[in-house]
Amino acid sequence: MYTYLLSCNVITLLLVVVPPCAGLGLDTVRGFLTREEDTVVFSLIERAKHPLNLPAYDDRPCFGPAGRHGRRNGSFVELFVRESEQIQAKVAGRYQSQQEVPFFQPRVPFTLAPPYNFTTDLHPGAASVNVNDAIWGMYFNELLPQLANNGSDDGNYAVTAASDLACLQALSRRINYGRYVAEVKFRGDQQRYTALIRSKDKDALMKLLTSQAQEDVVKRRVEKKAMVFGQDVTLNGPTETGDDTSSQSSFKVAPSVVYELYDRWVIPLTKQVEVEYLLHRLD
Amino acid sequence: MYTYLLSCNVITLLLVVVPPCAGLGLDTVRGFLTREEDTVVFSLIERAKHPLNLPAYDDRPCFGPAGRHGRRNGSFVELFVRESEQIQAKVAGRYQSQQEVPFFQPRVPFTLAPPYNFTTDLHPGAASVNVNDAIWGMYFNELLPQLANNGSDDGNYAVTAASDLACLQALSRRINYGRYVAEVKFRGDQQRYTALIRSKDKDALMKLLTSQAQEDVVKRRVEKKAMVFGQDVTLNGPTETGDDTSSQSSFKVAPSVVYELYDRWVIPLTKQVEVEYLLHRLD
Repeated sequence: MYTYLLSCNVITLLLVVVPPCAGLGLDTVRGFLTREEDTVVFSLIERAKHPLNLPAYDDRPCFGPAGRHGRRNGSFVELFVRESEQIQAKVAGRYQSQQEVPFFQPRVPFTLAPPYNFTTDLHPGAASVNVNDAIWGMYFNELLPQLANNGSDDGNYAVTAASDLACLQALSRRINYGRYVAEVKFRGDQQRYTALIRSKDKDALMKLLTSQAQEDVVKRRVEKKAMVFGQDVTLNGPTETGDDTSSQSSFKVAPSVVYELYDRWVIPLTKQVEVEYLLHRLD
Repeated sequence: MYTYLLSCNVITLLLVVVPPCAGLGLDTVRGFLTREEDTVVFSLIERAKHPLNLPAYDDRPCFGPAGRHGRRNGSFVELFVRESEQIQAKVAGRYQSQQEVPFFQPRVPFTLAPPYNFTTDLHPGAASVNVNDAIWGMYFNELLPQLANNGSDDGNYAVTAASDLACLQALSRRINYGRYVAEVKFRGDQQRYTALIRSKDKDALMKLLTSQAQEDVVKRRVEKKAMVFGQDVTLNGPTETGDDTSSQSSFKVAPSVVYELYDRWVIPLTKQVEVEYLLHRLD
């Protein structure tokens, strides 16, 4: 067992010094982001199935050690996310993959998972880019109240907390994937990006990264996905094709909520990740 | 803290002796099962996003204590499911709700979750009905090989294991809900059911529970859901309405796989749960 864990750690150490590989392309990145939209929309629809279950979000005394922001007394959901991340890190090595960014620092320095020779597509500076605090605040303060019925409580706190975890992880994976987007864009126009990174010109970097037309496509597509995936499918009735935005209430999550989520949070935070990654790209 | 846990356990004890309430009806039960179909289909589509990741299913030595069937050496996924269930039981009281049935017996006798006054819709004999072993075997031996690409391995074992957990829990909740279905059917025709239960006539009970027409509707509806939810939604192209079964390969999970899952496993296992529950209904 000890030998196995040791060899696993040696492999991890070796991987850190491998230079970025050339397998990453714009098509791969776009394909990943498009597929992640389905995961995000599914997770929101699943959370909307349950009531809010307010007691799970109460910052009560006596539940475990310090909370997320160094506070004493986190809520149940906070404790649940932290403990679930620990299990995913310890048993299955979740954060060995650069695509996964934890909300809480894993306490265990090793994993029981089989060793895997991950390619490192990102510059090592990627490790310092993390917007999970912003995602956490946005999810609980802005998004969740729009998904779940505040007035009711069915006591199934584990099911709702597991749904919250799924939403948080889907949003985090999607948004932190901005590091890959930035890497691909950097490789595609190395000279222009290098000049802007050297002059630390955040505004110009943001402008160069932005494609308003592409963002508009993404927002309208996720809105359509909320209609298609969030309808009640029956054998006889017509199936919603996502061409009509008039009846928001017939969907499990209002399509406008998903449009706004991407407009106000997912796209801006992804671009923030891209800029922060680029600022470290030449370190 | 001690006082809180104590009061929580007292509440649990009190709940056990509360008689079944009358709030359960056929419409509630049908509505629950129909909504669970979406959850099951979403979870399958999400698992199909990833490769099989074979090393996570290897029964290797040295990983934790005894496995599921008293074997030494469970696989990673087994360890992951067991540890995740423990967290969901300990932190959030998952199995305080009668709707949730664990795959592994929780090691902790208490929960940190806030106390909740669950209604008990089921006869206490429900506690002895559990087909999770059959679901476990079916999922890993029959279903998973049809969902995931056997040949590839991306090393993201935590993500695939978490997807497996979501599938297992969705299937378990759907199938073990047969106890509620049986309770409603029993209340609706108490005299006939009582006679068959007294004579332990399993075959006659199974026949009385079965509606071939209703089962057919369910199977065709989940097949349609696999088409609607498993399509690639684009802004321009036509949206799949689930009326054409000719091109199975254009969906993220073959609709025929979902049809067969319900035909061969979900519906028969649900009916097995119903019969077993009824056989204990007069204990």
